[in-house]
Amino acid sequence: MVQSNHSDEAACACKDGMFPTSQHQGGKRARHDHAGDEDRRRFLFGAGAGAAFAVAATGVATRRARAAIPVPADPTRVPGRATGTDGGYGSRSPYETARRILGPVPNDLTTWSFTPLADQIGNITASSLHFERHHAGIPAIDPARHSLIVHGLVDQPKRFSMVDLKRLPRVTRRHFIECSGNTNVGYKNAAAKSVQVSHGLLSTSEWTGVRFSVLARELGIAKNASWVLAEGSDAAVMTRSIPMEKMMRDAILAYGQNGEAIRPEQGYPLRLLLPGFEGNTNIKWLRRLQVSDKPFMTREETAKYTDLMANGIARQFVFTMEAKSVITFPSGDMALPGPGIYEIGGFAWSGSGRVRRVEVSTDGGASWHVAALSETPEPMCTVRFSAPWVWDGKPAQLQSRCIDETGYVQPTHAELVRARGDNFYYHYNAIYPWRIAADGSVTHAV
Amino acid sequence: MVQSNHSDEAACACKDGMFPTSQHQGGKRARHDHAGDEDRRRFLFGAGAGAAFAVAATGVATRRARAAIPVPADPTRVPGRATGTDGGYGSRSPYETARRILGPVPNDLTTWSFTPLADQIGNITASSLHFERHHAGIPAIDPARHSLIVHGLVDQPKRFSMVDLKRLPRVTRRHFIECSGNTNVGYKNAAAKSVQVSHGLLSTSEWTGVRFSVLARELGIAKNASWVLAEGSDAAVMTRSIPMEKMMRDAILAYGQNGEAIRPEQGYPLRLLLPGFEGNTNIKWLRRLQVSDKPFMTREETAKYTDLMANGIARQFVFTMEAKSVITFPSGDMALPGPGIYEIGGFAWSGSGRVRRVEVSTDGGASWHVAALSETPEPMCTVRFSAPWVWDGKPAQLQSRCIDETGYVQPTHAELVRARGDNFYYHYNAIYPWRIAADGSVTHAV
Repeated sequence: MVQSNHSDEAACACKDGMFPTSQHQGGKRARHDHAGDEDRRRFLFGAGAGAAFAVAATGVATRRARAAIPVPADPTRVPGRATGTDGGYGSRSPYETARRILGPVPNDLTTWSFTPLADQIGNITASSLHFERHHAGIPAIDPARHSLIVHGLVDQPKRFSMVDLKRLPRVTRRHFIECSGNTNVGYKNAAAKSVQVSHGLLSTSEWTGVRFSVLARELGIAKNASWVLAEGSDAAVMTRSIPMEKMMRDAILAYGQNGEAIRPEQGYPLRLLLPGFEGNTNIKWLRRLQVSDKPFMTREETAKYTDLMANGIARQFVFTMEAKSVITFPSGDMALPGPGIYEIGGFAWSGSGRVRRVEVSTDGGASWHVAALSETPEPMCTVRFSAPWVWDGKPAQLQSRCIDETGYVQPTHAELVRARGDNFYYHYNAIYPWRIAADGSVTHAV
Repeated sequence: MVQSNHSDEAACACKDGMFPTSQHQGGKRARHDHAGDEDRRRFLFGAGAGAAFAVAATGVATRRARAAIPVPADPTRVPGRATGTDGGYGSRSPYETARRILGPVPNDLTTWSFTPLADQIGNITASSLHFERHHAGIPAIDPARHSLIVHGLVDQPKRFSMVDLKRLPRVTRRHFIECSGNTNVGYKNAAAKSVQVSHGLLSTSEWTGVRFSVLARELGIAKNASWVLAEGSDAAVMTRSIPMEKMMRDAILAYGQNGEAIRPEQGYPLRLLLPGFEGNTNIKWLRRLQVSDKPFMTREETAKYTDLMANGIARQFVFTMEAKSVITFPSGDMALPGPGIYEIGGFAWSGSGRVRRVEVSTDGGASWHVAALSETPEPMCTVRFSAPWVWDGKPAQLQSRCIDETGYVQPTHAELVRARGDNFYYHYNAIYPWRIAADGSVTHAV
């Protein structure tokens, strides 16, 4: 498993002394730059003993951002940075440059940005890189003035301040949120080259907050109550109707994300969290819940966020994001440096419950192998999978499929279109194959 | 459970219209400032229609940082901030001001900083707030030039680049790291008023990396190998001897933390992760592992990080952080606004495995009640607990104790001193009581 992938290892200048070195590559962005190494070595060893710091301009991250970052030739020979110079709130290494990128933008305010899935390490998305989808920009909210009103078919309407909510019993859960439009861009838009653009409207966080059922017990819900309107305090006044059954089962009024307050882009100070439901029902900047005996037929569940079937009928209130998976390494816009052993990796998830199994095919779907999971799957949460692969240098097609605990199997594109037609825009969850060309380049195999 | 704690609710100006308002307090820092509300209201409603933004200077967070933050009176009336103005890497709300604070500092380089536990929401610590303990500052490291050498009693010594390590099968696990000196400050130093200072050398992350056992299979470990020296590349060249049994059982060469690369302060680009072992064995900026048949007797396991017992004998190689818990709300340096219902909350953890149960006492240890856990405990990971409490306004003493899956019960201070004497400095894990005075102020009850 541990081997070098240098095309010409004998000529590699990075062998020095007793330890065999294998600075092989993990993909295009991790290319090992021998010329750069030589330059750097000359530069560093040519510097006098007093010049402990030098400027290195090669390496993994600097392929994207070739900023001059001062690093010592040997970090043990110079004192490090003193503690607290970051104001008590740290930030990432300047060598780390992954970032959200914007989608095609109708205007400055109704926009989205994609999580860099290929760069994500682990299962949780760093809060700074959580995908975004805004309908009227990101509102600025003072938490001391924010409140949640619950009214309608309740015995006693009530307004809760943020302090009120934080005094109630809380739960902590890890869940993904996926925009219902995720991967639509990838399958309808040929320009979507990378997995960031094809699948990056997906992120996972540790969420903390109060169950709606806790509030419901306090307020007294009428017997005929069956729907709840959730309303945001952005300038779009985003509204969606949510079935009461879902609200009582596992809805969370969330104020915490990955250890701190929810980020402004994810609904600070309060959002609705509906595990496994399409992203836009997880109302951000939540300010009002109205209990009713019928849905409210808002814009975002009539003109938008419905699925037009082949027969001209639109499916409405399709909330659950079905089982799905995608390979993030290797993936679109990467280039493998040459034949060898690779560790295929990716994400799998299901809005219906736990991932039961992930299978990987390296021959275009002719045969499938069970992938390893990096941890025990949790309900309505992503899990990472991996599988070893020996690439012989010939063209290949890699793909994954997710099977969830209900037995649902992620369909192929052909199966999905057979079932739904080709008019629908949301809820695209088909298998997403990557084609590896003989030169190592990776593209979406439509 | 949902009730107001205003001392004079009838006079409260924050009632408006049909919804009863209960902006009650959760602690000293969440005090509801009526005078400020009045000022703000006058200011905002006095402004003309064109002045959609105003400066608010009251609220939860602004008790600490009264910065002028522009927020609209009604966020639905003005467009929000456009997406992407953060360069694709987001940051927290300006209202959130929790930060690490420095411990008493011998010099600029050998320092520590504390995680603000009372402000932490959920179980994972935000990477920006993970506690620090550095012996020679934070080194600046270029990941493209960093490598890990494994040598000694192995068939084939080898150097691994970061790219090499990232191509190997990876695991993702949530674990706490606790400095072995945690709470020492709190119990020997009367100046430690807050739980941040008494227990803040504790943080929890999602860690991702390669198991040491995967490398070991490749390299071939000699039969008589029983210890591994781990060496960091900071200017202290931090070294510790780790039992081979631990290395093979669950040691991780970690490069991921909470979805992105490990932060510089936690060992970027590579650290050793030893679930449940005292913090300083989790060598940061890891560059070398030497396999041996005996421990190396480094400075940090002879002159330091040993426990002097009452009989003059020092315990050496005490690695496991025993079961422990602490109440973070209410906790030191807070003030309860008055009698009423409160939700006691805190953290419990054990280096020996899973937390089995947490118990809370509100009468100084006379009676104990089982606390609720916010999620299913994971091995060598923190879990949050909570318990409702009705405070009658009389002096009270709150405390928690953790029972782990081995049956170990967190001891009282008296039990700990009876067993170990009072010479030891590390591994203080006793029950930590908080005294509530009649005026609501909270202090450590020694």
